[in-house]
Amino acid sequence: MMKIEKTLGRKPELRDLRKAFHILTEDAETKARRGFLQTLHGEVESPCFMPCGTQGTVKALSSEELESVGAQIVLANAYHLYLRPGEEVFETIGTLHDFMNWRGAILTDSGGFQIFSLAPLRKITHEGLCFQSHIDGSKQFLTPERIVQFQMLLGSDIVMVLDECVGYPSGKKEVEEAMNRTLEWAERSKKEFHARQTSPGQLLFGIVQGGIYTDLRKENCERLMAVDFDGYAIGGMGVGEPKELLKEIVPVCTEGLASDKPRYLMGIGTPEDILEGIASGVDFFDCVLPTRNGRNGQAFTSYGTLNLKNATYAKDPAPIEEGCSCPACGGYSRAYVHHLLKAKEILGSKLVTLHNISFYLRLMKESREAIQKQQFGIFKERTIQRLRSAS
Amino acid sequence: MMKIEKTLGRKPELRDLRKAFHILTEDAETKARRGFLQTLHGEVESPCFMPCGTQGTVKALSSEELESVGAQIVLANAYHLYLRPGEEVFETIGTLHDFMNWRGAILTDSGGFQIFSLAPLRKITHEGLCFQSHIDGSKQFLTPERIVQFQMLLGSDIVMVLDECVGYPSGKKEVEEAMNRTLEWAERSKKEFHARQTSPGQLLFGIVQGGIYTDLRKENCERLMAVDFDGYAIGGMGVGEPKELLKEIVPVCTEGLASDKPRYLMGIGTPEDILEGIASGVDFFDCVLPTRNGRNGQAFTSYGTLNLKNATYAKDPAPIEEGCSCPACGGYSRAYVHHLLKAKEILGSKLVTLHNISFYLRLMKESREAIQKQQFGIFKERTIQRLRSAS
Repeated sequence: MMKIEKTLGRKPELRDLRKAFHILTEDAETKARRGFLQTLHGEVESPCFMPCGTQGTVKALSSEELESVGAQIVLANAYHLYLRPGEEVFETIGTLHDFMNWRGAILTDSGGFQIFSLAPLRKITHEGLCFQSHIDGSKQFLTPERIVQFQMLLGSDIVMVLDECVGYPSGKKEVEEAMNRTLEWAERSKKEFHARQTSPGQLLFGIVQGGIYTDLRKENCERLMAVDFDGYAIGGMGVGEPKELLKEIVPVCTEGLASDKPRYLMGIGTPEDILEGIASGVDFFDCVLPTRNGRNGQAFTSYGTLNLKNATYAKDPAPIEEGCSCPACGGYSRAYVHHLLKAKEILGSKLVTLHNISFYLRLMKESREAIQKQQFGIFKERTIQRLRSAS
Repeated sequence: MMKIEKTLGRKPELRDLRKAFHILTEDAETKARRGFLQTLHGEVESPCFMPCGTQGTVKALSSEELESVGAQIVLANAYHLYLRPGEEVFETIGTLHDFMNWRGAILTDSGGFQIFSLAPLRKITHEGLCFQSHIDGSKQFLTPERIVQFQMLLGSDIVMVLDECVGYPSGKKEVEEAMNRTLEWAERSKKEFHARQTSPGQLLFGIVQGGIYTDLRKENCERLMAVDFDGYAIGGMGVGEPKELLKEIVPVCTEGLASDKPRYLMGIGTPEDILEGIASGVDFFDCVLPTRNGRNGQAFTSYGTLNLKNATYAKDPAPIEEGCSCPACGGYSRAYVHHLLKAKEILGSKLVTLHNISFYLRLMKESREAIQKQQFGIFKERTIQRLRSAS
């Protein structure tokens, strides 16, 4: 049998259960705040970046490696895990934590976005979503209730409601319809969650939709708060809209949402996007950039990105980023990583991914420290300036 | 700059330099022997399995992971590294140890076998080998001297002479010609090696060819020993010949070779092949099976192999091998590995590879212990019986 240590999985005390999210410091100048979320698998310090483990693995990394660079929470995707390996596996094996051998917290996205971006032949009914599996073409039907049940089976620390995500550009009527359906599903999700909840401490987040329409976003925030969730996600961004709209919509949502609940900006983004998000009062982030781009040789550093496949690095003895304390930078040169990437060796993808996740987590740690010092505004400006400087 | 610890790279004492290979125990019943080879990067206990790091990386594993499962030496391929990343990179960066961040020993194969199996348009002249790079089609010319120089640039602990490897079946005349050329190249290699040698302790191994012809093998052993090498490899096996011929030819070679020098059976093989090789007096082995098959989901265990892609393992909570202490078995179930392999996740390949290398190294450790107890014969029979039992 597997040996799984559970020291991080200690049950929170009663005090914590009544209030999962704790704000410790608010920045003076910006809307940034530092705090922590109490989960069934430890405290998660915020602002926080969640590495993407869509299929139950942060691509190219083991759970030990994630822990070694300080990850406290990872994101997985209920849509993907529902299709493969499927419910029966978790009924036999246990939670996703057991399956992945991950001692920290897990947020599972419902997969609404994925159903709309990956699955062909979708049909939306009042009841739920009819679609084809993108893996084997099999016909699938999911309801908001079903997807909550599945996430509870996974033992997710943070369960997300099923949402309908529309692309950019979309007409206001279409966006409004999707928003209303998402709100209706959110209510049904909450009902199901509370009917099924056996372990107090598991959290349910609602998702704000409304596209690029500020009035719809405001309305959505209010109606979602009336349902009352443990936290609120801002969905439907990063779907093709220009950057300016991201900068415009996010503050509308953070202002519209309860200040004492965690806010999560879904699927965003670059280090700059994240710093802007923090300044607008966002607490949680996830994005595939550090992992997906890392596998292809793009390294994130304090001085911008490097394409390590570039011949410039063939004889470069420096680590991926000077001064970085991650295991990849501790032992391996750019020249070696360049060679591995050119030779299509797995270790190349792994080393860049490990560095990138480490870089993102370091950016969050430094952000928390800057908020603590009431200096997030100046930290953000300086960091963005450095990120934009040529490497 | 890279931080590379060199604690394992201590210089051997003078006593060791005059005699690199030390036999500690000889088995009573079989020809197995236990010993160690003193290299510039630590002692290598024998019998020994060398994981294949053809392109300067044991596929899917980091140097830290190799060290964690007890590897003392890895094999790399001079032909591959000569073509990519090429000489200039090592002239700038340093040795292959520095490049790979590997503190243990490295044996570099000359790449004779690879030139004959991978490179198109070969032309063998008295001077050397004319061929096309299998990577970019560029025309290349290598001499025995050049390939020794390159391996010395890599800082190899064990340098291999360039050999001409013929396939199976091949006529006796063809095999004899290749053998004679390999012998001539071996003499030139030795001359070059001694002319260039700056760090005493670096070792040069000759390679016995002669195909399946026992008389040619015997002749080759004698003539190679007359040149006098630090160790002797048995080449040209595992090229398509039936297993019985492997069992017949290997003992002919080990008997024909100096008993006080290390013997290395190139590119062989399965756990059974290795146990038979040890019983015939072989000290060093390498093979791509644990890594190549591992990436495809085949796990080696004491009870035979498992194909972890098989649906049987979809809900199996057991580790890859019960009782195995490797990091893969310590945290992850067959069900999870099965899922990762089906989902084509990198972590799946890595976990099975890590277990397989760990299994091979454990087999060698147990073999050394059995020799120490003068019980290798019974150990070999029992182990083979168990390997053949259904999993």
